[in-house]
Amino acid sequence: MRTTVSWQADGAATALRRAPLKRRDLRPDDLAIRVDYCGVCHTDLHAVQARESREDGEAGEPLVPGHEFTGVVTETGSEVPGRSEASEGTGFAVGDAVAVGNIVDSCGTCAMCRAGQENFCHAFPTLTYGGADRHDGSTTQGGYSREYVVRSEFAYHLPPGLDPAAAAPLLCAGITVWEPLHALGVGPGTRVAVAGLGGLGHLAVKIAVALGAETSVISRSPDKADDARRLGAHDVIVSTDEDHMAAARDRFDVVIDTIAVPHDLGPYLRLVAMDGTLSHLGHLGPITLETTDLLIGRKRLSSAGSGGRPATAAMLAFCAEHGITADIELLPSSRVNEALDRLRRNDVRYRFVLDMSDLD
Amino acid sequence: MRTTVSWQADGAATALRRAPLKRRDLRPDDLAIRVDYCGVCHTDLHAVQARESREDGEAGEPLVPGHEFTGVVTETGSEVPGRSEASEGTGFAVGDAVAVGNIVDSCGTCAMCRAGQENFCHAFPTLTYGGADRHDGSTTQGGYSREYVVRSEFAYHLPPGLDPAAAAPLLCAGITVWEPLHALGVGPGTRVAVAGLGGLGHLAVKIAVALGAETSVISRSPDKADDARRLGAHDVIVSTDEDHMAAARDRFDVVIDTIAVPHDLGPYLRLVAMDGTLSHLGHLGPITLETTDLLIGRKRLSSAGSGGRPATAAMLAFCAEHGITADIELLPSSRVNEALDRLRRNDVRYRFVLDMSDLD
Repeated sequence: MRTTVSWQADGAATALRRAPLKRRDLRPDDLAIRVDYCGVCHTDLHAVQARESREDGEAGEPLVPGHEFTGVVTETGSEVPGRSEASEGTGFAVGDAVAVGNIVDSCGTCAMCRAGQENFCHAFPTLTYGGADRHDGSTTQGGYSREYVVRSEFAYHLPPGLDPAAAAPLLCAGITVWEPLHALGVGPGTRVAVAGLGGLGHLAVKIAVALGAETSVISRSPDKADDARRLGAHDVIVSTDEDHMAAARDRFDVVIDTIAVPHDLGPYLRLVAMDGTLSHLGHLGPITLETTDLLIGRKRLSSAGSGGRPATAAMLAFCAEHGITADIELLPSSRVNEALDRLRRNDVRYRFVLDMSDLD
Repeated sequence: MRTTVSWQADGAATALRRAPLKRRDLRPDDLAIRVDYCGVCHTDLHAVQARESREDGEAGEPLVPGHEFTGVVTETGSEVPGRSEASEGTGFAVGDAVAVGNIVDSCGTCAMCRAGQENFCHAFPTLTYGGADRHDGSTTQGGYSREYVVRSEFAYHLPPGLDPAAAAPLLCAGITVWEPLHALGVGPGTRVAVAGLGGLGHLAVKIAVALGAETSVISRSPDKADDARRLGAHDVIVSTDEDHMAAARDRFDVVIDTIAVPHDLGPYLRLVAMDGTLSHLGHLGPITLETTDLLIGRKRLSSAGSGGRPATAAMLAFCAEHGITADIELLPSSRVNEALDRLRRNDVRYRFVLDMSDLD
């Protein structure tokens, strides 16, 4: 085993603390990565909160969150192809800039894996933290740490020109918004609205605009209008203004709903044009909706979260081509608890990224 | 006013009784129709049941159900174009065989009406019964009666060759399944599954097969397999057989869910292929679903009920071309209460139609 340093929830602690973490020795198809920057995702907050609410006795293993990170390859397994031997994008060498998202393995044989949708692996993909390693059954531990060991097929080359700190959130927030925009065929002329301007929403706006879509933002706060326009949005609809919402009825081919708390989908479905789609992201759990909100005007509802390997690579290439990264607040990793607290209060524009160099 | 005879719920009565009914004198754009055959729809049952459960004092006006009927024009308003003056399909003459569905008027000016989707009229379409007439505000009364007076634009020519009794259910059940099949682009090679083999489901199978789709039926009862195949289905999946359902995972481009009671959509969403759609029909009210059932495998959910005028005319033409009508049990209208009772118990293959000639 190798030893690194991490931020972890342990026992009944309500704050993450700095502690050593064991990583597996490299298997033939593994990479060791020095984690430089790790984004702070809502999922991390949910995972920490879920742990806090458990009975003390059940606390079990420590939790190291983090599933959107960038870094540099420090070691390659014996069978990892070098850059020259590999088909494009799959070879790695020490010193390569790389990125890892929220999936680190999958069965590789089911129809979904064969179709490059490892995120829908029928045997369930291995999550970057809180998952079960497919070989030794150990619990995976995330990127709030100075080193990660990962199967090379689930690491991505970070394209040159993307700032490694601001690119980290692309690996979860970015791919989560890319998937529905891509699946729904968003391109020049598509009328897209993004509801909620947070970590997911601000990237949805940037990517939709870069795809050529006529892009609007739906926000509760009129004070986000300037920000929305700075991000490239062509219009802003204030969701608390009934007249404004009524005037936008049936207007959008695609509504990307990134609101991170349970809410009535009705008002957002009413903005969808006939045969258009509301894609609901970033909040797991049950949804209740009125049939008539879906029926009247013939609307469709979908949901998205993460993506497969080919889509992740395509998203990174697209973002590099269009100069898209997240708007971030970069903090030294020692301030991780402050970041989680502020995220809990929705006080971030638009994504926290932890600088892991203080773990050395 | 004109007087006809109807089957109506009145006061606190729990059964429909035969009683006279006033109809308006013809306006310039009205037709008077002798109703020959009227289908018995689940909506009729819900309307009668809703009335039964009200407090006595609230009973108010009588209720005459019925919104899928065929008959013959007996009189035309002064401004109804004759067949020769009208553009195709809109002219009427005494003696014409006609059909009426669940909408009898709309605003005619909103974007939905202009797009021929009067069923989504922003000012809400006038329902065939229980609606408010747009001119005098009176409550509309339905087709369980010997005469109906309707704006000619909401009557359809019944194509020659369609049996007028078996065609009546096309006007509600037929258009309700036609809309999603059409909106979702079902055609040769599309993999379609129909869940629930009742009034809607059996027509969905016939129409999907005629559209060239590879059509399966999902049914709780293995004993419906023979019927499903007789209707043209290529395969039957028994929903209570877990292995059978698991083997059909991700298999269908379109699942038409016609199950008329609240149920978990999860098992049916799992049968939908990536980027395919589950269309939920025939049951109004809230739906609760797990986000992950929609997210995993990238499924879409839609809902449908009725259709606009162009789609209704197109559906009737298609059914005439392919010889499609409902499988019905034809009863004299005096047995309407028996029909409603049996429908409540799901004891009908596949649609009751009332023969109104006994009202003379």
